[in-house]
Amino acid sequence: MSPNRAWTVASFPTGALAEENFKLVESPVPAPKAGEVLVKNLWLSLDPYMRGRLSQSKSYTKGVEIGDVMTGETAGEVLESKHPGFRPGDKVTAPSGWQLYWAGKGELLTKVDASKVPLSYFLGCLGMPGRTAYFGMKDICAPKPGETVVVSAASGAVGSVVGQIAKAWGCRAVGIAGGKAKCDYVTGELGFDACVDYKAGNLFRDLKEACPKGIDAYFENVGGEILDTVLRLMNVKSRIAVCGLISDYNTTDPYGVKMFRSILVNRIKVQGLIVFDWLERYPEGNKALRELVAAGKLKTRESVLEGIEKAPQGLIGLLKGANFGKQLVKLA
Amino acid sequence: MSPNRAWTVASFPTGALAEENFKLVESPVPAPKAGEVLVKNLWLSLDPYMRGRLSQSKSYTKGVEIGDVMTGETAGEVLESKHPGFRPGDKVTAPSGWQLYWAGKGELLTKVDASKVPLSYFLGCLGMPGRTAYFGMKDICAPKPGETVVVSAASGAVGSVVGQIAKAWGCRAVGIAGGKAKCDYVTGELGFDACVDYKAGNLFRDLKEACPKGIDAYFENVGGEILDTVLRLMNVKSRIAVCGLISDYNTTDPYGVKMFRSILVNRIKVQGLIVFDWLERYPEGNKALRELVAAGKLKTRESVLEGIEKAPQGLIGLLKGANFGKQLVKLA
Repeated sequence: MSPNRAWTVASFPTGALAEENFKLVESPVPAPKAGEVLVKNLWLSLDPYMRGRLSQSKSYTKGVEIGDVMTGETAGEVLESKHPGFRPGDKVTAPSGWQLYWAGKGELLTKVDASKVPLSYFLGCLGMPGRTAYFGMKDICAPKPGETVVVSAASGAVGSVVGQIAKAWGCRAVGIAGGKAKCDYVTGELGFDACVDYKAGNLFRDLKEACPKGIDAYFENVGGEILDTVLRLMNVKSRIAVCGLISDYNTTDPYGVKMFRSILVNRIKVQGLIVFDWLERYPEGNKALRELVAAGKLKTRESVLEGIEKAPQGLIGLLKGANFGKQLVKLA
Repeated sequence: MSPNRAWTVASFPTGALAEENFKLVESPVPAPKAGEVLVKNLWLSLDPYMRGRLSQSKSYTKGVEIGDVMTGETAGEVLESKHPGFRPGDKVTAPSGWQLYWAGKGELLTKVDASKVPLSYFLGCLGMPGRTAYFGMKDICAPKPGETVVVSAASGAVGSVVGQIAKAWGCRAVGIAGGKAKCDYVTGELGFDACVDYKAGNLFRDLKEACPKGIDAYFENVGGEILDTVLRLMNVKSRIAVCGLISDYNTTDPYGVKMFRSILVNRIKVQGLIVFDWLERYPEGNKALRELVAAGKLKTRESVLEGIEKAPQGLIGLLKGANFGKQLVKLA
């Protein structure tokens, strides 16, 4: 068997993330111990939250240390099992980090049924990003039919699911994305009612036009000026799910939100969203997402890089919005 | 009868409020029509929300127009009634505005029992500010016993009630106020566990010391740098009631909140609070507040200006934090 290859953390970025913050190392493929499973990773998921792990400031979970394998979720196949719940050939998702092989306790794996959908979907619309969209919409945005739901990073892994759920629930879905190609995809392929290109330079005017009845729910992935602009259009008793603030992740000087007063004046409910707070309800989310996919109401687009060598550049690009859809690295 | 005197709006301020934004006018005392009541106002309440009425930007209710009597609530005595629900001598609160007499529909009045407490309390701890504190604590801050509750403008009409409710509910109550005299009052008279003087120049360090277990609920009256500092100390799954942002009211260039990310990382629930959203539950709030006063658990301090002439300077001072406790104007 070819050796394991893993990206470890070489240093912490102070501003923008760079390739030199990572180091690719080789090691023997690990042998599973009693209760453990050896997984060959086929797909690595790249997600914005990863930037937060590469920081020494307080976040919602422990960051990585220098020398650790970089954090990440993979989808792969069981090669060898010393756990009664798994057999060779089983398809699973795993908290492997950025590497080709992983061995660890079976309890940390999730078995998935990839007979009807591609395995990679379990890292995207049927995985963590999909569940994030579902629970943020269900419990925080909580839109009623006919209401207007806006989502930033609308063509991304989470945003694309948010808007399609909004449509499935009878809402007006309006996306914000960067560039005409992404906006065309969001309205044309994903079926949003409108998508505003923030790079076109008229975000307030364009968003106002796209939301003639104002905004009842906003699913935030981006932050910064986009957040300030959206706050100007929020309706009385509207809701904001704060899922991500990617525009700030690469800076040491965070954007100052000037329209905070809209929260007061419009009695907006704003809530931070980390999907693992809903861990006990994952089965509900998974079921809802599978049904949407089966009904043809949840489409997805993947941005695939080939080979583990590409992982750092994939994350660097993702943080700049260079991806188009769910960012994956094909490992084998 | 001496004529009515009323402060009308002469112009809208663009930055700081000034006396010249108001004009004092005389008129005959109005005569009540069928269904109406004539009230002689004894106390005028001055409140931070008034600054928002003097603005042409969108707020949560219609602003005043040039020439209108300035908005405000009064406590007074019925002089003449053409409404079956009121008799001369009844004590009431009324949406009179800044004037000595008011005539209008009886339905707009609230009869109060001033036999056991001073009439002016119905503009403070037993009135709108008290109810604001109660419902913000009950429904948004929702602290459990043992949790730490922080409130800004802690010696003010709302803040003083927030902290005393926190104590009554078994929480650690920490105030933020400007200057040693206010802080001493908040801990000494009102019984908060601690009060931090934001003017002392070490807000983060001092607040951290006053909140060794972090902050579980924050009742915001001020905004600006105080909000940013508090956001750095909020616990996971904490709550913020945004009741006021007085530091921004007199500026055309609002403060940019840099620690918005804390809302995401700590999954904070933030909600704007305008007390009239709880209109149907006012009786519940009134009862809870009366019981606290009767039990000696809700003390109050009033800052009284004598004569309607002083109303503009009273509001101008209030917006700068010059008041100490509930700001009132004694009208007769």
